[in-house]
Amino acid sequence: MIKKSRLGPEALLFPTPSVLVGTMVEGRANFMTAAWCGIASSKPPAISVAVRGERHTLKGILANGEFSINVPSVAMVAEVDFCGIYSGRKVDKSTVFELFSGDLAYAPLVSACPLNLECRLRHTLDLGGHTLVVGEVIQTHITEDCMTDGRPDAVKIDPLVYSPGSGNYQRLGEIVAKAFSVGKKKDEGA
Amino acid sequence: MIKKSRLGPEALLFPTPSVLVGTMVEGRANFMTAAWCGIASSKPPAISVAVRGERHTLKGILANGEFSINVPSVAMVAEVDFCGIYSGRKVDKSTVFELFSGDLAYAPLVSACPLNLECRLRHTLDLGGHTLVVGEVIQTHITEDCMTDGRPDAVKIDPLVYSPGSGNYQRLGEIVAKAFSVGKKKDEGA
Repeated sequence: MIKKSRLGPEALLFPTPSVLVGTMVEGRANFMTAAWCGIASSKPPAISVAVRGERHTLKGILANGEFSINVPSVAMVAEVDFCGIYSGRKVDKSTVFELFSGDLAYAPLVSACPLNLECRLRHTLDLGGHTLVVGEVIQTHITEDCMTDGRPDAVKIDPLVYSPGSGNYQRLGEIVAKAFSVGKKKDEGA
Repeated sequence: MIKKSRLGPEALLFPTPSVLVGTMVEGRANFMTAAWCGIASSKPPAISVAVRGERHTLKGILANGEFSINVPSVAMVAEVDFCGIYSGRKVDKSTVFELFSGDLAYAPLVSACPLNLECRLRHTLDLGGHTLVVGEVIQTHITEDCMTDGRPDAVKIDPLVYSPGSGNYQRLGEIVAKAFSVGKKKDEGA
């Protein structure tokens, strides 16, 4: 018998990512660290991120209809945490990272992040504490060294993971199994 | 100079979780494996999951207005993959897991999963390939052994991670740094 505790309503999920949401606000690049981000659809590809209403980031997204999602590696942990602690209202974060240009004008891209998505705003959903922003992915950039056989390789990307509860950053660990494969064995044995 | 490649529009994010979305469909518990899941808001707590329109799961969510999000541990990888390969239209998944009861009638909960969220449907957003389902978290259950000082502990939970691109399941690795802390040093030094 597995013993369970009730925590009441909580916003918990494991793992969560630790992405940099890039926006242009008042002519300057700004980056907000977000763990509350998920893929939202396949065709067209879309991604969601939860942003608090008073955030500088929401201002930039609504003003320009564009933003970026940058997936950092573990090596960038100090800069990522920095962007999560300090608001763009008070700190100029436009010089923290080296940036590069993509297809969109208002989606600043961080060179050091292995994966960068350029997004066009499609929907906003006011959920109370946060606004859920849904963007269509217009272009995807990946650091060439982070691919194997032309596809993104999670081990080479070494993405930064945010673990709620403990409030720690973690890295990815060992490969456990192949997806769409290990579950077949159970079926064959059944 | 970091060399980048353009992949075109892609639905990519690292890390992504590997949750079991629990529903009641035609009187039977059903579980769909989903990597496209993210926290959507804080107050009230809300979570989003992308579900394809033809899925058995979407049918259950729309019929009952309730669902569960169950976060599995690495030890459950074969069962989780099984629930990702086979549709509830063809396979009865109601007996794959031992279940337990919570507050909601139509949100089946998996005992072996360290974390379980009971959700009430709040919004659906038709995004084309997938429907983004947003649920308010009504109750949170956690396995007592997976807490430290009364809070969820990611190391004890040992959550299953899905890595797109390679299509592997991974586990979490070492703790890298404390969040809302490691980024402060940079500021002090600046």
